[in-house]
Amino acid sequence: MRIVDIRETAIPLKSTLANSSFDFTEMTTSVVAVITDVIRNGKPICGFAFNSTGRYACGAQMRARFIPRILAADPATLLDERGSNLDQGKIFTCMMRREKAGGHSERSIAIGTIEVAIWDAVAKIADKPLHTLLAERFNGGKAPAKVFCYVGGGWYWPGQTIQDLQDEMRRHLGAGYAMVKMKVGGLPLEEDLRRLEAVLEVVGSGDRLAVDANCKFGREDALRYAKALAPFKLRWFEEPCDPLDFGLFADLAEVYDQPLATGENLYSTQDVENLVRFGGFRAGRDVIQVDPPQAYGIGQYARTIDMLAGHGWPRGALFPHGGNQMSLAIAAGFGLGGAESYPGVFGDFGGFADDARIEGGTISLSNRPGIGFEGQARLYRIMRELAGI
Amino acid sequence: MRIVDIRETAIPLKSTLANSSFDFTEMTTSVVAVITDVIRNGKPICGFAFNSTGRYACGAQMRARFIPRILAADPATLLDERGSNLDQGKIFTCMMRREKAGGHSERSIAIGTIEVAIWDAVAKIADKPLHTLLAERFNGGKAPAKVFCYVGGGWYWPGQTIQDLQDEMRRHLGAGYAMVKMKVGGLPLEEDLRRLEAVLEVVGSGDRLAVDANCKFGREDALRYAKALAPFKLRWFEEPCDPLDFGLFADLAEVYDQPLATGENLYSTQDVENLVRFGGFRAGRDVIQVDPPQAYGIGQYARTIDMLAGHGWPRGALFPHGGNQMSLAIAAGFGLGGAESYPGVFGDFGGFADDARIEGGTISLSNRPGIGFEGQARLYRIMRELAGI
Repeated sequence: MRIVDIRETAIPLKSTLANSSFDFTEMTTSVVAVITDVIRNGKPICGFAFNSTGRYACGAQMRARFIPRILAADPATLLDERGSNLDQGKIFTCMMRREKAGGHSERSIAIGTIEVAIWDAVAKIADKPLHTLLAERFNGGKAPAKVFCYVGGGWYWPGQTIQDLQDEMRRHLGAGYAMVKMKVGGLPLEEDLRRLEAVLEVVGSGDRLAVDANCKFGREDALRYAKALAPFKLRWFEEPCDPLDFGLFADLAEVYDQPLATGENLYSTQDVENLVRFGGFRAGRDVIQVDPPQAYGIGQYARTIDMLAGHGWPRGALFPHGGNQMSLAIAAGFGLGGAESYPGVFGDFGGFADDARIEGGTISLSNRPGIGFEGQARLYRIMRELAGI
Repeated sequence: MRIVDIRETAIPLKSTLANSSFDFTEMTTSVVAVITDVIRNGKPICGFAFNSTGRYACGAQMRARFIPRILAADPATLLDERGSNLDQGKIFTCMMRREKAGGHSERSIAIGTIEVAIWDAVAKIADKPLHTLLAERFNGGKAPAKVFCYVGGGWYWPGQTIQDLQDEMRRHLGAGYAMVKMKVGGLPLEEDLRRLEAVLEVVGSGDRLAVDANCKFGREDALRYAKALAPFKLRWFEEPCDPLDFGLFADLAEVYDQPLATGENLYSTQDVENLVRFGGFRAGRDVIQVDPPQAYGIGQYARTIDMLAGHGWPRGALFPHGGNQMSLAIAAGFGLGGAESYPGVFGDFGGFADDARIEGGTISLSNRPGIGFEGQARLYRIMRELAGI
């Protein structure tokens, strides 16, 4: 059993979205196909992944370092003990050869995307959904049939009215979601509060609404928003400030009693540990949102969960970033708080299986082997073409 | 006045060096040429830089995002107020468009290398050495004629004897250096201590010797080495552990009275601030070694210096990483503690001007306009070919 080839291609997201800090017009993602020599139903088993959303394609690092290191290794050294499947841990170690300490994001996205694609292949070789395989390895076999799932929406659009925003939120609730998230920080505080109050009218209560500032604020604005948002008792206040400004996070945690959230811009277990040690993040209250394919993959995510458990953090506080089929499988397999959803937002790269059902704020899981991209017709077309299957 | 083109090429370092954690056999660097339409002596003025040593080439990010953003901008928006030179700050802002918060190393090396090449062009347009220009802008015009400079050596070689190591150190002292650094962590503690004592015999006293563990140690080994090294009263103990493990740094600072050093694997001002806020790093004692072309360039380095000054840190505590003509110009221009030197180690990318003089532990500065790569014949041949001049 061996990996025959690993291919990648960069694809533009073609999104015109904007949040308070950033627009996505240049954004790309790397799609990866890991092609094995295991034949099933007449075709080679292939693992797929993409580098989630919000970080640019990273194919150059894959082509220059990580793919050649894997393909140059003796295939027998990349298998599990019984030789019956690929060993993603050994492949991770192989990719990390000749990599210097620190400087994570330069490589963590490329390595993580390949690693998640390998998990997809491993689960397909084992003929199990990835969430089932992860539950067996990391959660005592407890795989749920559905997962809590909320909508990351409420973006700023040119010409958008309050009515438009309320209509968007009504659509989400009508589609079966029970919690939504909206952007803040793109308008002056007073206007943001008018938007917030309008959305609260639709969703009913603060525990069904989170806000996301996308790291927009400096100290003064972060504290001003925290003070203004506190009375609404929101589900969480996400990314108020620079993701590495642990000092400011600690100060916010002092004055803001409701949950804070961050993590999508942290790329190593050590950064997350610094957040909970020095950033004042509160076990049992705050929310951590690492993006596994951008942060070295699922094996490293398991180590981050273990580290957090050592600091008293329950798995329910973890919501993996991404809003895609990968983060859904991970949330289900590890028994996390839930997953995010971006319906209709990131083109072929947002959303879940075409036949997934949203009901009562939860999303159903499929029984397809692997991550389940085969259930996303438009995305899977890109992946199948890349693999040539 | 405008930038006509920006070119980059990846070049293998062809080094067989190894430290305790890492070997350089696959290592590459990106050489950048910024070509302007300013003609002097019949040729266009070009700025040059490379992405220092220890991080892989990053040309893909330059080609996909940073070079196109600069070349697409209205040239008038990239000039200083009088229109008499390029404005590196405006060009930096242009490169940072559509970049998400955090995730620094994925872009900081590419942006920093281009930014340093732009400084080279700016200084050449102003017809001044870069160290003079930096001294005018950032150090009240105080440009020294020479800079303290030590040798980063004492690597592990297959078959190396204690005698070989002592001979190496004698060569460094004979060449005019007054301080050396050696690797630790590549052998068991007892053997490392034998090497250390042998080097101390040659250099005479601990304040003329630093040691570098290249982030090798976990908690137990880091504390064990700190205890064993303390009696030697070394100049500093560099990179004992993971560069982001601020908790362990703080514990080391509690038990190790002599200076600690780190920074070459920190890529943002915020990471450095976390080191001094949470890592227990001691102003007036410890040493910080950020690599400017790898960490967003010289403008960001100036902001890091300002941030550190706000925490009581003197400039003498800063030794920019790199061992090349860029870090030398920066150490001189900002009035820092000194520069590092890797004589004969990193091929064409280590070392200084061919006519530089080492005397009494200091290195002379040249009067060549810009960074002064024109004084490094072998390196400048690569740069000139890239620019086509």
